[in-house]
Amino acid sequence: MNNKLSNAPIYDEKWIERLAITIFDDIAVLTKDRHGVSRETYGKGETDAINYLSKLAVELGLYVEVDDAANVFFSSKPIVNSRYILIGSHMDSVPLGGNFDGLAGVLAGFLILSYLSKNKINLSLPLKVIALRGEESAWYGRNYIGSKSIFGLLTKEDLNSTHRKTGEKLSKAMQSCGVDINKIQSSISLIDKENIELFIELHIEQGPILVDRNWPAAIVTGIRGNNRHHNIICKGSAGHSGTIPRYLRKDAVFAGADLITRMDDHWNTIQQHGGDLVLTSGIFHTDSDHHAMSRIPGEIFFSFESRSQDVATLDALEALLKSECKTIERERGVKFEFDDLIKSSPAELDEVIIKNLLDAGESLGFERASLPSGAGHDAAVFANVGIKTGMIFVRNDKGSHNPYEAMDIKDFMAGLSILKKFIIDY
Amino acid sequence: MNNKLSNAPIYDEKWIERLAITIFDDIAVLTKDRHGVSRETYGKGETDAINYLSKLAVELGLYVEVDDAANVFFSSKPIVNSRYILIGSHMDSVPLGGNFDGLAGVLAGFLILSYLSKNKINLSLPLKVIALRGEESAWYGRNYIGSKSIFGLLTKEDLNSTHRKTGEKLSKAMQSCGVDINKIQSSISLIDKENIELFIELHIEQGPILVDRNWPAAIVTGIRGNNRHHNIICKGSAGHSGTIPRYLRKDAVFAGADLITRMDDHWNTIQQHGGDLVLTSGIFHTDSDHHAMSRIPGEIFFSFESRSQDVATLDALEALLKSECKTIERERGVKFEFDDLIKSSPAELDEVIIKNLLDAGESLGFERASLPSGAGHDAAVFANVGIKTGMIFVRNDKGSHNPYEAMDIKDFMAGLSILKKFIIDY
Repeated sequence: MNNKLSNAPIYDEKWIERLAITIFDDIAVLTKDRHGVSRETYGKGETDAINYLSKLAVELGLYVEVDDAANVFFSSKPIVNSRYILIGSHMDSVPLGGNFDGLAGVLAGFLILSYLSKNKINLSLPLKVIALRGEESAWYGRNYIGSKSIFGLLTKEDLNSTHRKTGEKLSKAMQSCGVDINKIQSSISLIDKENIELFIELHIEQGPILVDRNWPAAIVTGIRGNNRHHNIICKGSAGHSGTIPRYLRKDAVFAGADLITRMDDHWNTIQQHGGDLVLTSGIFHTDSDHHAMSRIPGEIFFSFESRSQDVATLDALEALLKSECKTIERERGVKFEFDDLIKSSPAELDEVIIKNLLDAGESLGFERASLPSGAGHDAAVFANVGIKTGMIFVRNDKGSHNPYEAMDIKDFMAGLSILKKFIIDY
Repeated sequence: MNNKLSNAPIYDEKWIERLAITIFDDIAVLTKDRHGVSRETYGKGETDAINYLSKLAVELGLYVEVDDAANVFFSSKPIVNSRYILIGSHMDSVPLGGNFDGLAGVLAGFLILSYLSKNKINLSLPLKVIALRGEESAWYGRNYIGSKSIFGLLTKEDLNSTHRKTGEKLSKAMQSCGVDINKIQSSISLIDKENIELFIELHIEQGPILVDRNWPAAIVTGIRGNNRHHNIICKGSAGHSGTIPRYLRKDAVFAGADLITRMDDHWNTIQQHGGDLVLTSGIFHTDSDHHAMSRIPGEIFFSFESRSQDVATLDALEALLKSECKTIERERGVKFEFDDLIKSSPAELDEVIIKNLLDAGESLGFERASLPSGAGHDAAVFANVGIKTGMIFVRNDKGSHNPYEAMDIKDFMAGLSILKKFIIDY
């Protein structure tokens, strides 16, 4: 760290931006891998980045705390018996990932806190910033490890999950970072959630919408839940393609295509009426052991996923899926066999926070830009334990979970300025 | 052979039926395999069955000839410088196949010839019956070897094709059956096709239509040709299923399903207006190396086959396929990549023969039942060299190319009686 930045003559927006660039660059170098960065969940890169920030916090005159799950909190001074505003995101990345997924949200809070502290600005409620560990499922197949731990939500199965490469248990990696596993296993909350006035997470957008709409930043309206079928089978009847006429066919591909097209039409209708929904059939195939060009396909296998921020939409979609299958079964003589539905609840973000974030942005000259989050975030854990939660997305080209993610520092500053104004106005 | 049958007191329909049962049973035993029968193309089972029939023909007082491709002809007496009516089908079967595919057509002709000969019935033109070799592609990957040889149509590639199991060349197998390979290679016709007044093939139906409609036999209106694409690729753009909204998606599965559904609608329309068509996409799959439940599928691979007895319908379908792909490309941002179209021409059966066969059936009390043939037959070779050709299908449960084919002898007699009346009335 350039000491001139921790002790500058003026602590203004320019200073925030210069400090932001320095920290992003330093952490990118510190955690670089053969492509992009690797900040392993409860591993070296994550710890190195957290240690870097903690050291800098001290240089900047901030107060640093570590909880029993090895998450790190920053504040101007110790907060005792007071409600507080919490800002944060996660410090880990996927293997060979980008520098901004997670880190941008921690830094936004960290920089706002530093700015308020240096300028001795007092808020109606004190500000805490959290650097969470273990959000990415890429290492242990489990998400939100740091944030779940805070609320006593980490399960035995989570703790016993194994590293994708080394096979080492998550509990062991956590212990090596100083985590008190007994406390985590006891399912006790590590903090009193009643003291958290609200939680805000800033995150790069992982999709292409902000780039497409030319929005530097946008307010997140909710975090989509999903309904998932890993493997639906459509069974028809195989046969010689030349000798079986239309009315006697039980063609699994035609039946499956019919289903997808019907669901696509429903999706279109729901969206035209203002509903939030995306549908995906990522896996869809005939049986490679039996399929042939001149054989009426007797079976297909496919996945089906619906995502929405509204539980009612997800429920309706599931009911539509089943009813369209019934119709197609009658019309085409096929049979659909469903695996168990796996549900993940949407997280509702706070209406008032959304409105106030939009207002803050508008007063700074930005469009009232909002969108749902399709991917999951730590914010969902906070929202689902009942904490009033908001999210800000920052424009990011080329998606996330790859070394090419590209967040412009100007866009980061736009998101940060909205968050700062919201905090100060609170 | 029961000698009582070759020399009976009366040669009537009952005699034909008893002789039919005897021959079917004898050849089934003679060529039986661990399941069903195996009468290998230019191999043992085929030769054994031909030798059995040839020996029986002599017992019945018939005249037997063998051509340079080892096909065998039966007639009442040598036919010199005269046009003649030709009836026949093939003697080979698929490995572990059924007893009736091919053999039924040879026997129908053989039995009618025997009946006419025994009863000394003279026709306006003499009758020849042909027992063809090598119709099934199951052995060497090539169809119609015997019938193509007759018209000098067997190619070098055909002769060099190898046995699926032993790897032996077809030419060698043919030689071991006495075929003059030099003559076959010279592409000379083995018979003067101008002498063939017409050709009729009776064959078991290989589809389920006659069973479904309760027709013991039916007249074939044409032999479908086909247009085939082995591998069409639809390229979209892969991406995170949660973060990419509908309007920015390029989903290959949704695009492919859309295409299949559109083609299904066109198929329905063409059929409702009386067109002959079947469509099949026997192979349809996402890329198993990359597909995942939460990944928008970036590519699909599929086959597409259309079959019709009308060239114009096949051409129109191909044009529709291409134009719907263009529309979907515009609407869904995907790209379709086509492999070369492989065409096989439909064979037109003779209108007058069809009408006369229907008339013959009607006068015997059968419905005027007709349908196209979806599978290929030797009759297509005769029709496509310009010989007036007709076909009769006999009801057969459980499809063909399997040991379970089930042709009732009464249905065989129905088909035979139509053919006999047609020949006698000619």
